[in-house]
Amino acid sequence: MLSFKKPDVEQFFKVFNIEDFTLSPDEKQLVYSTNLTGHYNVWAMDLPNQYPYPLTFNNQSCHGLKYDPNGDYILASFDHDGDELTQLYALPSRGGEIQDVRVEAEHRHLSPKFSKNGKRIYYTSTKGNKTYLNIYCYDLETKDERLLIEGAEASTYLMDVSSDEESIITLKQFSNTHTLAYIVQNGEQTQLTPKTDKHHTVDSAFFIDAKSIYLVTDHGEDNGYLAHFDIESKSFTKVPGPDMHFTDMYLDEKENQLYLLSSKGVEDKLYTFCLEKKEWNEVDIPVSIIDKLVVGKSGTVFLLGKTATKPSNIYQLGGESWLALTNNRIPAVSDEDLSEPEIITYPSFDGLEIEALFFKAKKEVSNGHVILWPHGGPQASERKFFRSYFQFLVNRGYSIFAPNFRGSSNYGLAYMKMVEGDWGHGPRLDNIHGLEWMIDKGYADREKIFLMGGSYGGYMALLLHGRHPDYFKGVIDIFGVSNLFSFIDSVPDHWKPVMKQWVGDPVEDKERLTIDSPITYLDTMTKPMLIIQGANDPRVVKQESDQIVEALIEKGRDVEYLVLEDEGHGFSKKENEIKVFRAILNFLEKHM
Amino acid sequence: MLSFKKPDVEQFFKVFNIEDFTLSPDEKQLVYSTNLTGHYNVWAMDLPNQYPYPLTFNNQSCHGLKYDPNGDYILASFDHDGDELTQLYALPSRGGEIQDVRVEAEHRHLSPKFSKNGKRIYYTSTKGNKTYLNIYCYDLETKDERLLIEGAEASTYLMDVSSDEESIITLKQFSNTHTLAYIVQNGEQTQLTPKTDKHHTVDSAFFIDAKSIYLVTDHGEDNGYLAHFDIESKSFTKVPGPDMHFTDMYLDEKENQLYLLSSKGVEDKLYTFCLEKKEWNEVDIPVSIIDKLVVGKSGTVFLLGKTATKPSNIYQLGGESWLALTNNRIPAVSDEDLSEPEIITYPSFDGLEIEALFFKAKKEVSNGHVILWPHGGPQASERKFFRSYFQFLVNRGYSIFAPNFRGSSNYGLAYMKMVEGDWGHGPRLDNIHGLEWMIDKGYADREKIFLMGGSYGGYMALLLHGRHPDYFKGVIDIFGVSNLFSFIDSVPDHWKPVMKQWVGDPVEDKERLTIDSPITYLDTMTKPMLIIQGANDPRVVKQESDQIVEALIEKGRDVEYLVLEDEGHGFSKKENEIKVFRAILNFLEKHM
Repeated sequence: MLSFKKPDVEQFFKVFNIEDFTLSPDEKQLVYSTNLTGHYNVWAMDLPNQYPYPLTFNNQSCHGLKYDPNGDYILASFDHDGDELTQLYALPSRGGEIQDVRVEAEHRHLSPKFSKNGKRIYYTSTKGNKTYLNIYCYDLETKDERLLIEGAEASTYLMDVSSDEESIITLKQFSNTHTLAYIVQNGEQTQLTPKTDKHHTVDSAFFIDAKSIYLVTDHGEDNGYLAHFDIESKSFTKVPGPDMHFTDMYLDEKENQLYLLSSKGVEDKLYTFCLEKKEWNEVDIPVSIIDKLVVGKSGTVFLLGKTATKPSNIYQLGGESWLALTNNRIPAVSDEDLSEPEIITYPSFDGLEIEALFFKAKKEVSNGHVILWPHGGPQASERKFFRSYFQFLVNRGYSIFAPNFRGSSNYGLAYMKMVEGDWGHGPRLDNIHGLEWMIDKGYADREKIFLMGGSYGGYMALLLHGRHPDYFKGVIDIFGVSNLFSFIDSVPDHWKPVMKQWVGDPVEDKERLTIDSPITYLDTMTKPMLIIQGANDPRVVKQESDQIVEALIEKGRDVEYLVLEDEGHGFSKKENEIKVFRAILNFLEKHM
Repeated sequence: MLSFKKPDVEQFFKVFNIEDFTLSPDEKQLVYSTNLTGHYNVWAMDLPNQYPYPLTFNNQSCHGLKYDPNGDYILASFDHDGDELTQLYALPSRGGEIQDVRVEAEHRHLSPKFSKNGKRIYYTSTKGNKTYLNIYCYDLETKDERLLIEGAEASTYLMDVSSDEESIITLKQFSNTHTLAYIVQNGEQTQLTPKTDKHHTVDSAFFIDAKSIYLVTDHGEDNGYLAHFDIESKSFTKVPGPDMHFTDMYLDEKENQLYLLSSKGVEDKLYTFCLEKKEWNEVDIPVSIIDKLVVGKSGTVFLLGKTATKPSNIYQLGGESWLALTNNRIPAVSDEDLSEPEIITYPSFDGLEIEALFFKAKKEVSNGHVILWPHGGPQASERKFFRSYFQFLVNRGYSIFAPNFRGSSNYGLAYMKMVEGDWGHGPRLDNIHGLEWMIDKGYADREKIFLMGGSYGGYMALLLHGRHPDYFKGVIDIFGVSNLFSFIDSVPDHWKPVMKQWVGDPVEDKERLTIDSPITYLDTMTKPMLIIQGANDPRVVKQESDQIVEALIEKGRDVEYLVLEDEGHGFSKKENEIKVFRAILNFLEKHM
């Protein structure tokens, strides 16, 4: 009798995200950061009651939540409007005014860890060492801060502190594909993985007891695996296990087991590894992507994760089944109207097999247009996670093709390394060959292709536009790099040591960086463009967008430029996200 | 090691309220209106999951929620920014754009009821009869609206529709203490209570089946009781039961019983009455005040209620115990810091016993000041319900004295009638005698008394100020009536028929209305004042505050005037509430 209208832009963005969560030591309170009100705040629930109540009203993204081991407060990391200068605050467990713990306006404070008794915090900071970072210990009683490790050679991060606080594990990040972990004990530093010239990574490492460290590494292999480091004998041993790509792990003290996260390709898997029996078991999970696991003292597992059609939610494992504690969903959109991606593989110009996700618009609504979406990173990948704007665009009739071009993460170390020193050739051609394959197979129509990307994907959108303009009816760049020279120059200080291996050297690689810089191809960037930039972006600074917009406007091109004054490298505020995607939809409809 | 600050104004007002709720016919979805984001919107939870998701984003108060009997949508009543012109909309059950059902800008649509099959809605409207109201039936299929009953003599409201839609129950409201219910069948109207000249009320009445109506009335008695009306024989019978003051009832079809709400004095009680065995049983409740009960088809009971220290929450009765589905609380304030009121009784000038609530500031924080709070209504009462501003003021060291002066509801019909035609004498002296008793008993200090009230309480604050200025250090009036003549003239049309009995006649009672109008006492209103008014208030129009503010300013008095442009007779928006109570706190501290 009554018929209702189709959902609007707003509905799709009225989807809440969960950034991080933590659990009180007594497991009675779950604390998490979510944008339930349109802005991020910290909320809590008193388990088993699932109804949320707010702890903060500061409307800021939270970059980390850690419950004080004594259960008195929560250590929360906030930056300001996306500037990524993360500060540490104490938040009373029942809410109220937050208190400064480590706040220094121009510095970042990263990955804090409590001492077992909660009296000290250990953390990484840019203070005193903007390039390589330092590791500090702060005593909450005496208010003394002590410099523990001065970073050198590469950005140096704290990974773990032993329970007697005598040893710590550090990580040196030479690049995304070259990270080394060390145990530092009595002033002596020992590498956890056997020495080798071959690049490899350590993704996770922690103390199990005074004798043992477990770590996840791809030392000597292409995929991440579990390994053991014996502290006394300083010996490294691979732990035999399933042929997966492990990237993270969590300790379950109660059951004396590890939870291991495998992130191969476009979805995650979860395993347990029994430390005593050395047995592996796969655990069914209610999501395709796991963002975080918390294992309580009682052994209860809490999981934050999502699927392509279901946004971030927290689940609790009770027996064999997962109970959803939150219930984030798209309002007004039924599950049948959401798009689960097809997984596609195609050969690139050199025969390399590329995996891609294809979000296909339903026949009833399809307008025949395909949007090519090169993901950001570039050493990341497009996976089965939830993107409001994908679901929104597909609902509006656009299909989305998202290839995991060479250099993407989650396809092994060698594949990931392929983008290093080659930002603009191989990955670019993987995109183009993907498009050709799509056209060839009838998935896409040569006359109906748009291009959109953010961050590295924005860079790739600009470059593809400059070098292959004929493919595209219009191009959308969301905080993309336009000039590799100025980009190398303007990244945060602690990124600088990796730039040479990752992107290239402005002097030695001048020719290649020129060829691979979108700004080189202004003459051929003839299609309509929409460029979006966050004013506070510390990764891809506003100047990257400003310069190309100016140059294109000078040439009389059709360019719309949208600057978000209170955002960084991402959208932290719902109203901004809605504004941007309304502009994107208008742009697409205008140039369709 | 870390110490946290005391909670601020904001914390106390970051308390969420729940306005109304409804249950889907399959009992899987609970839908309710709450201001979780600072503004009211409709939210839902998929039971047993308690995590809320939003259905609307219109930021408007909801004056009624009713699930379509077929489970397809929710009929929701919204006004606009407090103008009380309630319109009826259909809201898709998974959220999305709301659709007009009965929307006519200048009219009110009240208490809609679905036909059993959901094809028609029955409702009361000001359309065509602003004074006495009409009852309409709207066919959702044919879109035809049919006038069923033309209101006459008194405001006429729909109470119930029989399942065959052949009979309806209407209520004529001659005054708050004189309401008569009728069954209308084949064009014939029969009064449900035996005819008498003595005023009485019917508070609830509905069809049980084709033969029976149950009703709650105080016909022939002082307190409300359950009665039965036999439709065939047209006979009325009192149902023997506990000596309570019943005011509302709900049918449990599954268990063939009624839930009866008793509202005697300052807290509610709940009883069941078995329709077959005629047995009464008291039900333990988790609140002191019940706002609404919903009994599902399965017999499951859902309750919306609160206490003096716990705001609105919804509870579900499972077996003997109540499960809190929501978890609204004051952030940052521990339960020990909240004030549970003392119940005080004192004799007034004529020996009448008055009950009052006293919220006493804790010794550690008390500043020795007492705020006299005459409640609104006046035919309402101050009860053990949650008021953010009471808890906030008590936390800041002010104690609050809230007498249920003569005319208050919940103390029997005779008591309630005492304010009719006597707005300014008896009730005023009850307040003054209460203060004297408080001073005498050492609860209050004669030199440290403030006065604050809203609506009728605002009127009383103005009048007490004008007639007893020496008691008060300062006076706060929140949308109060300043002039009974202009008030009688400016109330909504459908209030007009009751004004003579309730307040008085401008011609016949000219002398009394002059004596009882605050504006008569401008000369003696010498204490500092803060006056607050909602610009859209349809009950106490802005002119009521404007005229007294102008007059006082002309006389050079210390008056602060705060007008809320987007509010009516109450605060629908958190930011306005915070603004008002920050101003109130500043006023109190300034004049302390």
